[in-house]
Amino acid sequence: MSAESLYRSYQDQIEKALSDIQLCDQPEDLYQPIRYVLEMGGKRLRPMLCLLSNDLYEGDTEAAMHAALALEVFHNFTLLHDDIMDKACTRRKQDCVHIKWNPNVAILSGDAMQILAFELLSNVPKDKLKVCLDLFAKTAREVCEGQQYDMEFETRSDVTEAEYVRMIRLKTAVLLAASLKMGAILAGANKKEANHLYQYGIHLGLAFQLQDDWLDAFGSIESFGKRIGGDIVSNKKTYLLIHALENAKDKDAEDLTYWISVQPEDPTEKIQAVKAIFERTGVDALCRNEIRNNMELAMDHLHALQLSTERIKPLMDLGNRLMERNH
Amino acid sequence: MSAESLYRSYQDQIEKALSDIQLCDQPEDLYQPIRYVLEMGGKRLRPMLCLLSNDLYEGDTEAAMHAALALEVFHNFTLLHDDIMDKACTRRKQDCVHIKWNPNVAILSGDAMQILAFELLSNVPKDKLKVCLDLFAKTAREVCEGQQYDMEFETRSDVTEAEYVRMIRLKTAVLLAASLKMGAILAGANKKEANHLYQYGIHLGLAFQLQDDWLDAFGSIESFGKRIGGDIVSNKKTYLLIHALENAKDKDAEDLTYWISVQPEDPTEKIQAVKAIFERTGVDALCRNEIRNNMELAMDHLHALQLSTERIKPLMDLGNRLMERNH
Repeated sequence: MSAESLYRSYQDQIEKALSDIQLCDQPEDLYQPIRYVLEMGGKRLRPMLCLLSNDLYEGDTEAAMHAALALEVFHNFTLLHDDIMDKACTRRKQDCVHIKWNPNVAILSGDAMQILAFELLSNVPKDKLKVCLDLFAKTAREVCEGQQYDMEFETRSDVTEAEYVRMIRLKTAVLLAASLKMGAILAGANKKEANHLYQYGIHLGLAFQLQDDWLDAFGSIESFGKRIGGDIVSNKKTYLLIHALENAKDKDAEDLTYWISVQPEDPTEKIQAVKAIFERTGVDALCRNEIRNNMELAMDHLHALQLSTERIKPLMDLGNRLMERNH
Repeated sequence: MSAESLYRSYQDQIEKALSDIQLCDQPEDLYQPIRYVLEMGGKRLRPMLCLLSNDLYEGDTEAAMHAALALEVFHNFTLLHDDIMDKACTRRKQDCVHIKWNPNVAILSGDAMQILAFELLSNVPKDKLKVCLDLFAKTAREVCEGQQYDMEFETRSDVTEAEYVRMIRLKTAVLLAASLKMGAILAGANKKEANHLYQYGIHLGLAFQLQDDWLDAFGSIESFGKRIGGDIVSNKKTYLLIHALENAKDKDAEDLTYWISVQPEDPTEKIQAVKAIFERTGVDALCRNEIRNNMELAMDHLHALQLSTERIKPLMDLGNRLMERNH
């Protein structure tokens, strides 16, 4: 099967399995938000990574699908609760649950959704349950840690690069990594193989998040899918801003301090000015370099697997395709 | 060992095990609230029921302690999130997490706490993990359902007795029941025994919650531990109010409708008037009768166990002691 038709087949299976998840009817305001969030769509990246990784070692797709669903449901739960905390209004062009219903419904249906993730996971083969549960729970807690750091950074101006990288590793990368590792574990891969896949996920996740930062400033609305400059407007401590604050000198330093202290009604000038400082301080190139480094590390881990190049192609292609929005 | 020294021994072991739970240090605002909530104290009823039930069949206390901790941590997580939703300010005379920190910290540390509960549970013996996890997750989701119904009842005036009993069963009774059942399962008891213990927990939980309703109106501050009349002031759809709304006639019906439509600054007169209607409509006696019925059903299930009266004494005593605050 070509990589392309493999994706399409898995994508269809994932969507079908997601819509087949049995949810109770009552109380409506507990279960309808879960269905609503799961039907919002998305790339289904985590279940896809889990199934592709499982496929590397010819694992049973049906068994891996339980873990794949658990990962996707957990991911969507974090979006639901993050949107409350971040006071977001829309997600994928639809109202967030706390807007469409109310914050209490969003808190509680999120709680039930997290439980549902564990319930789905409990269906993996019994002899793998303990190891999957441990990995899943540890990762889930790390994702919470990442969100906490992310919130704390909003009110800090002294965030270091190391702190930032730790935050995006926890908030984004570990769940991708765990998805890959779990697929491998369920297929019976050994520890070394599973860990290479984990590391592939970590570096792919870091590259992806760094690219998100870069695109917010230098992308186009088509490639990014969101309005450009959102992070600049909100003074988000991204890789770009952290380094610009560190590197900017003289007038650039003064200007940057000014721009992050103001919230103009029309943000066009602020976005342009901050982007120009990003370019002059070289953080634009620095960020692209860091993305490239992480992609190389990711691919190194894929090539370290005891598998043929042909076999790892679908995962390699998926990683590359994920990073193809940089123009 | 006497029942009394058995409790004390388990109580000490539970407190020690709770304080021995390994939590990360960082980020502080994620983990400190969890420690804070666990150190607030409480009856530790759920772990106690789990250990006592495990003891009935001479199960290994160390193995059951993992489940006992999971149950207590989950219960405390529900209090944490319920307090946000209910806009409560204090819990056990201390500031709630969303007051002491902020609502976002309360949401997120609650999420991490729920994950922690599953992590603790994952330490039960491997051959029992699947059955414990299924029971735990199903019960956890039911508790969410109970909280959702409870919130919905606030804005409804047509709640039926059946709906009310379903709500308190889900919100309170099922977790007590699951605690007992899990202890028995871990000790290797058969399904029939485990189910009798589950039913003991259901009826004990219903009796306990109904008594809570009754004490709110007819208890003393000493026996109840909270100010009297809180439910009356907030027009909470308790067993008493539901039946009073159904049974009250003529002037009582008129008066009750009036009182639940007003929010006087000094609630003394409202509390006295509503209590008098409760007495005249006979719902005071009705409630006490329902408590007695449930306690009898609870004890029937204990006596149905294939165990000597001596062996079930600690659980029987604990149930009776729990209900001894009715004066």
